[in-house]
Amino acid sequence: MILIKNATILTLLGDEVIYGGEILIQDSTIQYAGPPKSVYENVDMVIDASNHIAMPGFVNSHTHLAMTLMRGIADDIPLQKWLNDIIFPIEDKLTEEDVYFGTLLALIESIRTGTTTVSDFYMFPHVSAKALGESGLRGNIGVAYASKPLVSDKLILERAQEIFDKFNEMDNGRIIVSLAPHAPYTCSQNLLKETGVLARKLGAVIQIHLHETEKEVLDYKEHYGQTPIEYLDSVGFFDNKVIASHCVWVSENDLRILENRHVGVASNPQSNLKLGSGIPPIDKFLKHNLAVSIGTDGASSNNNLSVLEDMRLLSLIAKGVTRNPENISAPELLRIATLQGSLNLGFENVGRLKEGYKADIIIIDASKANMIPSTNPHSLVAYSMYPEDVDTVIVDGKILMKDRILLTIDEEFVKNKVKEKFIKISKLLNKNKKNSTLD
Amino acid sequence: MILIKNATILTLLGDEVIYGGEILIQDSTIQYAGPPKSVYENVDMVIDASNHIAMPGFVNSHTHLAMTLMRGIADDIPLQKWLNDIIFPIEDKLTEEDVYFGTLLALIESIRTGTTTVSDFYMFPHVSAKALGESGLRGNIGVAYASKPLVSDKLILERAQEIFDKFNEMDNGRIIVSLAPHAPYTCSQNLLKETGVLARKLGAVIQIHLHETEKEVLDYKEHYGQTPIEYLDSVGFFDNKVIASHCVWVSENDLRILENRHVGVASNPQSNLKLGSGIPPIDKFLKHNLAVSIGTDGASSNNNLSVLEDMRLLSLIAKGVTRNPENISAPELLRIATLQGSLNLGFENVGRLKEGYKADIIIIDASKANMIPSTNPHSLVAYSMYPEDVDTVIVDGKILMKDRILLTIDEEFVKNKVKEKFIKISKLLNKNKKNSTLD
Repeated sequence: MILIKNATILTLLGDEVIYGGEILIQDSTIQYAGPPKSVYENVDMVIDASNHIAMPGFVNSHTHLAMTLMRGIADDIPLQKWLNDIIFPIEDKLTEEDVYFGTLLALIESIRTGTTTVSDFYMFPHVSAKALGESGLRGNIGVAYASKPLVSDKLILERAQEIFDKFNEMDNGRIIVSLAPHAPYTCSQNLLKETGVLARKLGAVIQIHLHETEKEVLDYKEHYGQTPIEYLDSVGFFDNKVIASHCVWVSENDLRILENRHVGVASNPQSNLKLGSGIPPIDKFLKHNLAVSIGTDGASSNNNLSVLEDMRLLSLIAKGVTRNPENISAPELLRIATLQGSLNLGFENVGRLKEGYKADIIIIDASKANMIPSTNPHSLVAYSMYPEDVDTVIVDGKILMKDRILLTIDEEFVKNKVKEKFIKISKLLNKNKKNSTLD
Repeated sequence: MILIKNATILTLLGDEVIYGGEILIQDSTIQYAGPPKSVYENVDMVIDASNHIAMPGFVNSHTHLAMTLMRGIADDIPLQKWLNDIIFPIEDKLTEEDVYFGTLLALIESIRTGTTTVSDFYMFPHVSAKALGESGLRGNIGVAYASKPLVSDKLILERAQEIFDKFNEMDNGRIIVSLAPHAPYTCSQNLLKETGVLARKLGAVIQIHLHETEKEVLDYKEHYGQTPIEYLDSVGFFDNKVIASHCVWVSENDLRILENRHVGVASNPQSNLKLGSGIPPIDKFLKHNLAVSIGTDGASSNNNLSVLEDMRLLSLIAKGVTRNPENISAPELLRIATLQGSLNLGFENVGRLKEGYKADIIIIDASKANMIPSTNPHSLVAYSMYPEDVDTVIVDGKILMKDRILLTIDEEFVKNKVKEKFIKISKLLNKNKKNSTLD
């Protein structure tokens, strides 16, 4: 059993704060979180959290972990050019080992910035499962696919199911597997429809990119006479548990569908702004009571994996666009960045500090200059803390980082491996550049 | 002499990068910055900057330092309510000692997040000068004033001039003093006009809040038939070196005036969004070639003092609002957050790593997970680094922080003092709350 003492606890049950509180962890679960109680027996470890804030860890509900490999290689260009000219040609050449180390690098950064649950949406999902399993983080691994010439939809989905059968509910349910059709502009209508059928059969969550750019929605409408969201609704796709990332360009009708079909929306404001896709309509999401959670998107479009940064930006957009500073209180913002993310990814009992919930806990240093005075701990986390103020990270009752030291991943080894890998990527990049100059 | 070796140097001369470079500092000045040269004599200290990026420090061109005292006491409410019901009543009771320690707390956070130059705009400017002098940071201290019943404009300006005469060009020019009329809605037209006259006489920089909210501009126009910027232009106010913060609500004519009169604009995007004032029109600033720099505003409206956060947000707004990801390249963004800030505040030869420039340098840890791979160092600083990745801070040739240890301020002492002060502020706050309940 682990006992955390003297903590300022944000339980995320409303705006509750417990000062000088205690959290008792048994195996993977919180046995008690509240005011100091009494003497406990069988405590293996005591963590003194004086001058620290304890709260549920951040949830990154949309990202592409191994894209850390391509961090910063192509900034300040539009999404389609970025994808077609730079990212896709490099991804074509990535090996399983590349992806393994790129994923681990992402998990290191995630732990260091207080994330306890990640989504993934990339190639080689079995590699992602291996890395995630070793790291100790909680995760939903999307088996990513798109339509391919010469490969039948049936075969694509059979392969996806294989991964699902092998890795879903791995490690005490810490890792789950979802179906991840890339997007309506890369998947045929049949593949999307059949994805819905398979997900119902498996009870699988679906991850998908929806309505990220205006152009993709306009093109779809012109071609099919309805928006992607309208089409998916018409074929029962949303009868499943679906988490849709982006949803930047949504009509009132699209919003009503998302609301009525309880579709989770993973908003990635930093990626949307940086790629010039648009400003996500956070105020509309809120008006329609959508289940909004936070995603960082991949490190090559963001360019980091701090959920805190995107959470803060989401709040600033909600307040700034509507010119209503009362939009989203600090406790509500923290709920969006934790509990709502877990729910959207298909995890139950994650995202609150409460008896029976999973012990996914971050302990934040509240003694730093930027956290003083300690007026209002929800506000300090929402608006003042820096991503690296997290000292200790616990997931599923296991300590992954203690006082900024990682305990599950050999950080230096991974960094050096990624640097090696990057030499190969640089060569590919230069080759591509040369080719495009010759064209 | 200090020698920095093995650094990845961003000189901020265009997009120049020098790998494995050296910087030689003599007294307050850079004597050499470039590729490794030869053996130097009389070097007192060598800093090995392997795996680090060296660049000019960030410049916070608009803030209210001691407002750290009120961090997080009133979030998620509109600007005027925030000012009138919470901030002003507390400020009425603040002592010089309160402001001294609040200012030092702000300077600690500034150094820790890589800021080498700050502006200030608050009460008790002599106290700010003392704190700034001790800290070693470079700063422009605004002598803040507004019209007051029973106090003549003449007396207000005489007092401002006293402070100017006493502290301007203090500490080898590291500290300069500016005139800081609060805003057109708190200063009479005569006081503003006479400020312009006095500034011309003294050769002083003017700091002022302009066009922060739509309402203040509409009210002014209704009352006076012209916008504040139009009025100030008509009385020659802009014949001085002026830095105007905010400028969120500006017409094409206002923009033309700011452009033609070379007014510096300190943009505070996080504060503007968080208070619901609006989205600063960064794209229009750029189209008019305005001298835009970054401000964090006070810690009670932001709620932290990281220039990096506001710089990143400014870039995201520029790209997202226009849906043009090519708006503001990474090297240009860094120039805005460094050199342009210094120029706007009235400092010459600050903000580049080049012979003859002031040795205001930050050394950033580029070995962290979020900084790998090390593709493009401008991009890493602009989009990937976290505020606390700064290891070492040098201002005017003096080391203020080395490997995250502060060398000029007793950090624990200041934090404890602010915590003490805050008990008093909390009592005031509760009293105010009680009063307003009784009303």
